[in-house]
This record gives sequence, C-alpha cells and structure tokens, in this order.
Amino acid sequence: MATERLDKNKTIDLRKKHIGPSCKVFFSHDPIKIVRARGQYMYDENGQQYLDCINNVAHVGHSHPDVVRAGTQQMELLNTNSRFLHDNLVVYAQRLQATLPDKLSVCYFVNSGSEANDLALRLAWQYTGHKDIITLDNAYHGHVSSLINISPYKFHQLSDVEHKQSVHVAPSPDVYRGKYRADHPDPARAYSDEVEDIISRAHKRGGKIAAFIAESLQSCGGQVIPPAGYFQKVAAHVRQAGGVVIADEVQVGFGRVGSHFWGFQLQGEDFVPDIVTMGKPIGNGHPMSCVVTSREVAQAFMASGMEYFNTFGGNPVSCAIGLAVLDVIENEDLQGNALRVGAHLSRLLGKLKDKHPLVGDVRGPGLFVGVELVRDRVKLTPATAEAQEVIYKLKEEHILLSADGPHRNVLKFKPPMCFSHEDAERVVEKIHLILSEIEEALNMRMPNQVHLDNGKSKRKLPDENGVQGKESAKHNRT
Amino acid sequence: MATERLDKNKTIDLRKKHIGPSCKVFFSHDPIKIVRARGQYMYDENGQQYLDCINNVAHVGHSHPDVVRAGTQQMELLNTNSRFLHDNLVVYAQRLQATLPDKLSVCYFVNSGSEANDLALRLAWQYTGHKDIITLDNAYHGHVSSLINISPYKFHQLSDVEHKQSVHVAPSPDVYRGKYRADHPDPARAYSDEVEDIISRAHKRGGKIAAFIAESLQSCGGQVIPPAGYFQKVAAHVRQAGGVVIADEVQVGFGRVGSHFWGFQLQGEDFVPDIVTMGKPIGNGHPMSCVVTSREVAQAFMASGMEYFNTFGGNPVSCAIGLAVLDVIENEDLQGNALRVGAHLSRLLGKLKDKHPLVGDVRGPGLFVGVELVRDRVKLTPATAEAQEVIYKLKEEHILLSADGPHRNVLKFKPPMCFSHEDAERVVEKIHLILSEIEEALNMRMPNQVHLDNGKSKRKLPDENGVQGKESAKHNRT
Repeated sequence: MATERLDKNKTIDLRKKHIGPSCKVFFSHDPIKIVRARGQYMYDENGQQYLDCINNVAHVGHSHPDVVRAGTQQMELLNTNSRFLHDNLVVYAQRLQATLPDKLSVCYFVNSGSEANDLALRLAWQYTGHKDIITLDNAYHGHVSSLINISPYKFHQLSDVEHKQSVHVAPSPDVYRGKYRADHPDPARAYSDEVEDIISRAHKRGGKIAAFIAESLQSCGGQVIPPAGYFQKVAAHVRQAGGVVIADEVQVGFGRVGSHFWGFQLQGEDFVPDIVTMGKPIGNGHPMSCVVTSREVAQAFMASGMEYFNTFGGNPVSCAIGLAVLDVIENEDLQGNALRVGAHLSRLLGKLKDKHPLVGDVRGPGLFVGVELVRDRVKLTPATAEAQEVIYKLKEEHILLSADGPHRNVLKFKPPMCFSHEDAERVVEKIHLILSEIEEALNMRMPNQVHLDNGKSKRKLPDENGVQGKESAKHNRT
Repeated sequence: MATERLDKNKTIDLRKKHIGPSCKVFFSHDPIKIVRARGQYMYDENGQQYLDCINNVAHVGHSHPDVVRAGTQQMELLNTNSRFLHDNLVVYAQRLQATLPDKLSVCYFVNSGSEANDLALRLAWQYTGHKDIITLDNAYHGHVSSLINISPYKFHQLSDVEHKQSVHVAPSPDVYRGKYRADHPDPARAYSDEVEDIISRAHKRGGKIAAFIAESLQSCGGQVIPPAGYFQKVAAHVRQAGGVVIADEVQVGFGRVGSHFWGFQLQGEDFVPDIVTMGKPIGNGHPMSCVVTSREVAQAFMASGMEYFNTFGGNPVSCAIGLAVLDVIENEDLQGNALRVGAHLSRLLGKLKDKHPLVGDVRGPGLFVGVELVRDRVKLTPATAEAQEVIYKLKEEHILLSADGPHRNVLKFKPPMCFSHEDAERVVEKIHLILSEIEEALNMRMPNQVHLDNGKSKRKLPDENGVQGKESAKHNRT
C-alpha cells in the first residue's frame, strides 16, 4: 500500500479531499511530485532530477545511507521512551554538549522545533518567574499556539490580531532594509538600545522580562545577519532585567554557517545564550529536536515540582539517527564544505550584484545565503513578483529555490550540506539568465546605464504560485 | 558510537549530567536498562526478559518487522516535507478517514499528541471565534504550554498555580470515586449538567465556549470510563453554546478498546466529535500524530489567512510507517485480540476483586484496563503505597506495570496489542500473590471476613520509587 503509485491528478484530488487546506504545496498551480531523493538531488515520478537548494532538513543529504542504516538497526532492536535507561540517549547528549560552550550542559529531547521553542519558553518562565517575552519583528519560532504569539511572521498574516500585552516586538537587526542600516555608525548598539527601551517601557507598565528569543540568524524573516556585538549588548540588557536569552538554532545550527557549528558563535566567544533550541537538520528528516540549557535553569524547572515527559523525545532510534548525522558531518567534513562552497556561492552571487540592478543585497555565511531583490536600489522597493518569477523559472530548469522574508523578495539558499561547487555554479548561471530576461523585459539597467523607459515594462508578473499574466508568459517564451 | 555499550552506572552518571532532571525514569532508585524488545517483551543488558504491560506506544508489538521494513524502505527512498506531493500522505489520510465517521474527513499530520492537541485548540478557537475551554479534572492533554493550562493532572503538581479565567474544569465522569457514582440514578446526566452549569457561569462572566476537550476514556486521570450517553449530552450543551467537542484519542484509540476502533465509539453511533486527535500508537514508536476534523472546521481555519506548515508532519516515512501499522492491526486481527484477551484479563482481575479487599474496582474495555486499589471499600481510601508496592514487586518478577490516577492507586494495563491469554494469566497470578502478601502483612480481610486488628499492620510501605521501610523489606523477604 505504501509503495502504490497513484496518477498525479489522483494524488492532487485525494490531497484536496483529505489534507487540511491550510497546508500548502510548493508551486500550488503545478505542484511537484517527488518520489526519490539522494544527496542534493530529488526525482519526480518521471525520473526527472531536481537540484535541491532549499531542503535544510536533509542536512547531510537526502537518504544518506549511514543515517538510514543507523535508524534501521536501532528500529530492529528497540524504540521506546526515555523512562528506561539507554546508552544512545546519554551518548548523544554528551556529543551534542561537546559542540557547545561548557555552560550549556543539560538536554531535553523533543520532537520538533516547535516543541523545543515552547519548552524554552517554559524554562524561561519558570527560571525567572517573569512572563514577558521579547521577540524580533518578522520572526518565526513555530506553529504551536504559544509560538504563534511570538512570531510576527505568522501573526501578521492574521486578519484580526489580538495583541498580547506580554509580548514585545523589537526591530529586526537588518542592516540592509531595517531601521538602522549599514551607513549607521553603530547599528549593533542602535538595535540593542531598542531592546533596552522595550524593557523600560515594559517595566513602567509593570511587566517583567522572562526572555529575549531570536534566531541566531533570521531565516523566514529574510536571511537577516545581525551586526557583530548585537547579541552581547541585548543579553546585557535582558539579564540586567532578570531575563534569559534564547538562541533559536532550529534553522541555522549544525555547521551550516561554515566557520562555526552554531550560528550564535558568529557573534564571538563572549556571547553564550542561556538556552539553545535546535531542530530541523539534527535528524536529517527524522522528527527530533532538542533544548540545551544550563544546570541552573534546569534545576529551577525541576523545582516547580512538575515532571517533564515527552513520549517520543530522546528515544533510541532518534538518538541513533542523531549520532549518525553528527558522524557524517565529521566524516565528510560537511561544515568545511559549507564554508568552502558557501564562499564560492556568495562570490558568484556577489558578481550578479555587479551585473543585475534587481540584486540589491547578497548576504549570509556558509550555506545560509540570501539574495534580496529590489526594483530600486535607493528606495529598496521589494521586487516580490520578480523573486517569484525567478523561483518559477528555476523550477522549469529543474532547480528548487524559494523566496522568503516579509516581502517574499529574498531568494533563500539553504541546501543540503553536500552541495557542490558545480551546483553553485549551475544555479547562479541560471539565475543570471533569468534576471537578464526579466530586466530586459522591464527595461532595467544598472544605475550607471539607465536609459529612458520606453514603456516596454508594462507587463504582468507572475503571482506567488507562478501563474503568469498572459502577456508575460508570451513574452518569456520568445 | 550508537551501539557502544556503557556500564549501567556510567549510563546513570551521564544521564544525571546531561539530561534534564525533570525527565524521570521508571523505578528511579533502581532503573532498568533496556537494550532490546520484541512483541510484548523487553530485554535488559543481561538478557533478562520483562513482560511489558505498559507500552501502549509499541502498539502492534515492539520492533514489529513489517513496521521496521516499511520505515527502512521509505527512508532509503525519500523523507521530505509535505510541500511536495506524495502518495503515502494521501493514501494514509484516506485509510485513517475510512476508520472514522464520514464527517471527520480532513487530516493534519503532526509529530506528537501535544502538537495534535494544541492544533485542535487552534482549530476550535478559529472556527468558533471563542476563547474558553472546558476540560475534565485530572485530565492530561500534553506538555506544551497551552496544554499544561488545560491539564489539571499537570498543573495540580505546581506549587503556585496561576488560574486561567478561560479554562474551566468539569468533574471527571468517574462513577467509582467521583462526584456522582454508580448508585446515582443518572450519572451521565448529572455529570453533563455540571458542564451545562460551567457554561452558564462562563456566559455570566462574559466568556464564550470554544471547546470541550476530553480523552474518550481518561488514561493518566485514572482509567476513567464515562457513563454511556455522557458525551452526547455534553456535546449538546457545548454546541448550543457555539463550541466544539474535541475527542483526545492519543492514548485510547486505534483498536485498543477491542469492540471499536475508537474510544469515542463506545458511547454509541449518535456521538461524533468535531475534532479527533490521535498520537502515541499510530507510528508504533515513530514520532507521528494526527488531527482529523470536518470540512467546515478546516475551511474556517484556512479563512484566517494563516498557512499551517509542520516540518516533519506527514512526511513519507511517517506515513509509510502509519500504513504498515494499520496493515498489521488488520492482518493480525489485533483489535479482535484486544477484545478477546482484554475480556480474559478483566475476568481474571474481576476474580481478584472477590478475593482481595485491596481491589476496589476493575474497569475498562479491551486492553485498556484499570484496577483501583483501596484500603477501605466504603471510604475508598486510596491504597497508594500498596499500588506502588505491587508495581515494585512485579518488577522483581520481571513484569512491567504502572500505577496512575490522581492518587496513583490505579494499576494501569495498556500493553502492546499482541498481549496473549498466557501473559494475562501470568501477570494476574503474580498480582494475586503480591496482594495476598501485602494483605496478610496489613491483616486485611474481605469485608465478611474482618477480624480484630492485631496490630501487625503497623509497617512501612514503600514510597513511589519502591524504596521500602526496613521492617517491610524484612517482612517481605520471609
């Protein structure tokens, strides 16, 4: 039954009938059916190969044989809850701890980034005895209700937002499009001063700060790289107020940034969060996640008197898979690969910026790279439709990329970590050709090459699902 | 690394060092290390076999080869998110739907019972536009913060409970120990009237009911079997108030009750919940869960404008495993086995009630059976320490059972569904011997056999971790 092959239209029909309509597919007007994947490649039902630039969960490569073998062998032996002693649990916790500063030594194993971030909030509330949470604008921390409340990326989608008094939204430390930009003398201080102001205002209203939570690098929020020193300054303000700092590494941790194993380490050795959450890549697709914190926070949580039990968290199969993922990262030097290939990818994308007026910014370390498209490099008008067209045209070239950020105009690279130099060259070359075509149609030139608009730019661009206006589709086929 | 064998003391040391102290082990003063399991048997590091009466997650039996094979084959092919079309997702949804009333046709796949119940609340809030939740006393619905709020089983453990105005706790419909008992002329009406009263009081305070949530049979709450007709009456009151009914089947669904596939079906065909959540058994240990609801509720959730994305939920591996579990239940007639072996187990336990004054009540359908131990059959004084002694003594006999409920005096049977007649006979015989020993030490007799207390009953009983008073330990060894 599991291997039965349905006609693609039948799959779509059954999906419409039985899967919640809030669960979206990529390219909803012409979704892809994927039946097989290996490394950085996915294959559809006709055997067509796609280059995968987006699946950060398949961290060490799709269906890595070492990971599959570890999972299989453990499933054959035992898969039960952590109320029984098991070596996999403690050995995995020890291995994870070895990647982190000494202070972060106590693990809680859960099933998803959402469970991890919710538990991080519970730890913070219990440890501090405070309630208020400071989050960043455009942040996404998960889909359970407590996290929707602290995820502007999600709650901005709601028609009727109920503002929670205990949630405070600080400006995203985005030096490209944010409140303080690269030309500011000290954006790290300016953005952290905003957090200090929020704390003061909360105190005046009788609020008390439990935690500041942020992704070490904002992902869905638009691949935002905070200026160096930002987290240190924020941490000082937050701890002064009796709060803790939660680093959400669900999307960015596990060697993706290349130079370090964790995203927060980019800020320097003098910054250590109080709680770190990790998720997506750690099981290479197997549902598993983890919260790591200090002994002090863990003791305070226990002192509440409430046991913490997670049915599946830390089971022997999850831990066997987690250990295999760490082994593969080491054995295949995937962190090094992220550094080298990421640098090559960024260099190639940087060159596009010199050629293409639509490319406003290229940013990000390792294999966590964003390309922000703008219609105007001074006004920074988001090139949302153009970004969607790039994604759609790349799909026609059998390359999978996505666009994200509050304006959905940031091309987002977060491929499996086995991504190669050749893969980088292939995708950048295709983007170059697609941007050339779009810019020609829009009559866009580099700032020093601007000519009069001859009216040719009046065309419809595709909507977010790649449905093009007839005019545009016709134009693009010529 | 994953298969490395540590000395048991080393495992314990590392666990103390690196695992959150709120995460408890069974038998904390002498925990068990399990390295292998098959069917209803688990094996420790010395090859000692244990009969497993508690692991309801290993639903079709530990490490069932068909389930392992399905997981392995799919892991080798593909494991990615549900933004790509995949047959496993839709075929599994279709198979699940076929076990439910037609009205319940739309699925959301998630990773845990906690994620499922949190999503159920989000669906209810969005569909009704109301906020208030009615929950049962002693209920447990999960470990994320929104569910701690509606789980008296958990929040009663807290020293300082912050009472949430929007959460209302109705009496548990327990006809043995609850507010209205078996001698009441109509306990179903009496308990549902309590819910009606709660709704009236909430309305007077300006509250509006979003949902009533309950396990179809309370599990952690003490194996409580609601009187027939209770849910129909509650549903009428709740729907009248504009709310929906959520049936939590995380612990009791998937054929465990024997006569039906779902626990809520025990109430009759005229009761259909608006939302059903399922979890633990559905992946036989693999982290997966599901929420099923009506088209109307699903449409309202979509109308909020917010996408629902769950990274791991409904991935091809989870769905392949889910399909294999359904196949095994069918192929091995495990629902039928639950009915037959469950009836045998209940019959044998019923006989214990005739012999042992400590056995106050035996209840539950299929392989979901509770044995409530009391010191006094009239006052129903909970025999908490005695229940713990039974558990501890059974462990010495290499049988794993647990005690739960608000007084931790209910022996809780929820074994893998391949549990046999012989297993039932073995565990009941051991319980008989253990109860005899305890009752002799306490000088307890059946009500019609009561003699004067000769003072021999003054002895220490073990605490919840099985640490016995010296006197008792000595006594029990003789």
